[in-house]
Amino acid sequence: MSTMDELRGIVGAAHVLTDADAVAPYLVDWRRRYVGRAQAVVSPATTEEVARIVAWCAQTRTPVVPQGGNTGLVGGATPDDSGRAILLSLKRMQRIRAVDPANNTLTAEAGCVLLDVQAVARAHDRLFPLSLAAEGSATIGGNLSTNAGGIQVLRYGNARELCLGLEVVLPSGDVWDGVRGLRKDNTGYDLRDLFIGAEGTLGVITAACLKTFPLPRAQVTALLAVPSLRAALQLLEDAQGRCGPTLTAFECFSDFCLALVERHFEGRRSPFAERHPHYVLMELSDHEDQQHVTTLAEGLIGAAMESGLVRDAVVAQSVTQARALWSLRESISEAQTHEGKNIKHDIAVPISSITRFVDATDALLQQRFPGARMVTFGHLGDGNLHYNVSPPVGMDEASFLARQPAIYATVHDQAHAFGGSISAEHGIGQLKRDENARYKSAVELQLMKTLKQALDPLGIMNPGKMIGS
Amino acid sequence: MSTMDELRGIVGAAHVLTDADAVAPYLVDWRRRYVGRAQAVVSPATTEEVARIVAWCAQTRTPVVPQGGNTGLVGGATPDDSGRAILLSLKRMQRIRAVDPANNTLTAEAGCVLLDVQAVARAHDRLFPLSLAAEGSATIGGNLSTNAGGIQVLRYGNARELCLGLEVVLPSGDVWDGVRGLRKDNTGYDLRDLFIGAEGTLGVITAACLKTFPLPRAQVTALLAVPSLRAALQLLEDAQGRCGPTLTAFECFSDFCLALVERHFEGRRSPFAERHPHYVLMELSDHEDQQHVTTLAEGLIGAAMESGLVRDAVVAQSVTQARALWSLRESISEAQTHEGKNIKHDIAVPISSITRFVDATDALLQQRFPGARMVTFGHLGDGNLHYNVSPPVGMDEASFLARQPAIYATVHDQAHAFGGSISAEHGIGQLKRDENARYKSAVELQLMKTLKQALDPLGIMNPGKMIGS
Repeated sequence: MSTMDELRGIVGAAHVLTDADAVAPYLVDWRRRYVGRAQAVVSPATTEEVARIVAWCAQTRTPVVPQGGNTGLVGGATPDDSGRAILLSLKRMQRIRAVDPANNTLTAEAGCVLLDVQAVARAHDRLFPLSLAAEGSATIGGNLSTNAGGIQVLRYGNARELCLGLEVVLPSGDVWDGVRGLRKDNTGYDLRDLFIGAEGTLGVITAACLKTFPLPRAQVTALLAVPSLRAALQLLEDAQGRCGPTLTAFECFSDFCLALVERHFEGRRSPFAERHPHYVLMELSDHEDQQHVTTLAEGLIGAAMESGLVRDAVVAQSVTQARALWSLRESISEAQTHEGKNIKHDIAVPISSITRFVDATDALLQQRFPGARMVTFGHLGDGNLHYNVSPPVGMDEASFLARQPAIYATVHDQAHAFGGSISAEHGIGQLKRDENARYKSAVELQLMKTLKQALDPLGIMNPGKMIGS
Repeated sequence: MSTMDELRGIVGAAHVLTDADAVAPYLVDWRRRYVGRAQAVVSPATTEEVARIVAWCAQTRTPVVPQGGNTGLVGGATPDDSGRAILLSLKRMQRIRAVDPANNTLTAEAGCVLLDVQAVARAHDRLFPLSLAAEGSATIGGNLSTNAGGIQVLRYGNARELCLGLEVVLPSGDVWDGVRGLRKDNTGYDLRDLFIGAEGTLGVITAACLKTFPLPRAQVTALLAVPSLRAALQLLEDAQGRCGPTLTAFECFSDFCLALVERHFEGRRSPFAERHPHYVLMELSDHEDQQHVTTLAEGLIGAAMESGLVRDAVVAQSVTQARALWSLRESISEAQTHEGKNIKHDIAVPISSITRFVDATDALLQQRFPGARMVTFGHLGDGNLHYNVSPPVGMDEASFLARQPAIYATVHDQAHAFGGSISAEHGIGQLKRDENARYKSAVELQLMKTLKQALDPLGIMNPGKMIGS
């Protein structure tokens, strides 16, 4: 029997793609930076099928590249160009296995789309709080394999913190059934968190038991104009002190970001009469009622205006207005793309170091790359900035991109010097694999390699991602 | 040079104990169930000293048993009786290395006592929410190595969720510096969570960067009499829906527990005129003010009394009254000890299964061990019950303890059948090592052994704990 026949025998002929046109979309990443090759795209529908495919791959030493919604930003789900790999698409595994509102959990298979999972939770009067730009395509398996972040990490944590249990097909083809819905379980090593964020290099996540939360009854969304990042951070501290966990989002962007959005999206406009250096998009979510949370927000904003932390403020009066405010924040990435090539970062530093990091790094970049334009925005409440760089006006694309390694090095050296991370939420994949190795200690790199070698001794799981082979 | 001279050369003669009287307290566990032996008790003051000791142990194949406050309940910090081990006491490592209120973090060494860490946080207007009965002696290193739980897990998570970064001395003597204060960092495998809850079998935690939270401004503590566990669980759901994260504790105990406390502690009395089947001790913590949270609590309790979920209620009017209510809950364990030997469990099941678990298991125990008295209490909001068993009235201790294996098996089989855990917060240590192996799948046990073998190939780290060698 040929290779393809064996795989067809497992999943059915319709679910083994080899036709060039059919496989093409699976072999290029979201940002179109990587194009790989594969023997086939194989789409199992059950855990047992995944297990049989991986066992076959182990037997034949065939590399396996797991893929969910293919929305990752670091090429983590794109095979290399050897053409040896099987692209394992988990998209057909989209069963919600269980919803347990009293336990505040739901169990979803890897291929469930994040937006659908949110909707299932909502239908049971529950919140699944993971929320990010790609949620209409991104899948739970990918969210967990990359430990996705997004806009509510401040309150609810990353994907890691939202998962209670996992089912994983190991590199041997054995299935680890760790799908548990327990808040407390101290009966062994924390296997779950080893697979979360491992980018499919240690096994294939096939299902997960996820935490849900009581649905908040009322929200306030406000856009606040602030005189500086320093003021935004003081406002963050005040908001956390006054509102505690009612504060569910605290995003920030510079006026340059807002201007980019206004330039490239008709109808998306600053609601303020004047320009301000930075803006904070703040959301409060409350379990009492609209009046209560509105009063809370007004008290906070009023005090901040009095003390000069906030220069101007708009509080959304409807869901439509709230969406319009959010659209300003959420259009920044796309506006940047319309503006031309740019160099993206995804750094995190301790919140107490953000202003010093930005001041020092802005200065360094201006000195080394005069005229570079900073596109500074992100999840300020998490210390996570997408500290992006656009070229000086008039510089051609090629000249700018030639500077990418030097700009990366400048920004990442700075993040590292401030005790920060060079990849806060996007992961390593292939894009940052070598860059990452420059910052990790020898001890840490060795620990990672030891784990990889122990769990995947044949090296078949998503080779070349996360760590070098 | 003799062995002891080499160790004295590292930590100083005063910090290598070999005298039988001096070492005795370190070699017996809190519950006095295990007594071990050791070559010496060695107390380093710095990470470098720990690293040198462990390197020496690796070189000489000497077992290392790390110990913090020695308050564990499963014999995890007590050496075996071979006398070959070094007892590594982390108690001298009690520096607070950094407090960063703006980042909501503090960095503490392993030997810092939990109560002291709470106090340091409070002095900076911050909350470190880990709270448990042994907090006056238990240390941060032990809390993390056992992934401690306690009374605020419902809102803030276990020790695992409260830790952002770790420093660990590996079994080779190398130091992994993973002390990071970042909310987001996706640059590698999750090494941190591998060491948390590993009971010192993979390395020695020497320091940790811990999360803090804004200090709540007001609290309400209430004791509620409920007609059944089912009612208590409905109340939990209502409280979470109405109060969201303002609900910070939701403990439960049966009338039999309360009667035990009243019998063995003078002055600790039920505040209710009548007896009720169960009681809920509830705490709300608020960032607004006392009036706001009191109104919130009254609304919740009023509705619950109207619907019959709550039969009677006492709301503490002062900190003293709140402490008195908590003392009823916190005295149960000790009251049980005064009453005589008892068989303790530390199970967790999905919250949606608790009543079915308790009904079925109560019935099974009465059938198999007629007259056994159930001491049912615990962290209901986490699905974690200390479902303890006291002997039938008049049964002698020896006859009762002879039934321990059969009672363990009954309760643990039931917890397992309900998708639960046989050790929710106390861990495995030596007490539950073999029992645990009965419930873990072969795949999971093999994964644990693979990790142990990869990280500690010489098998020197706390041998015989967590998993068999």
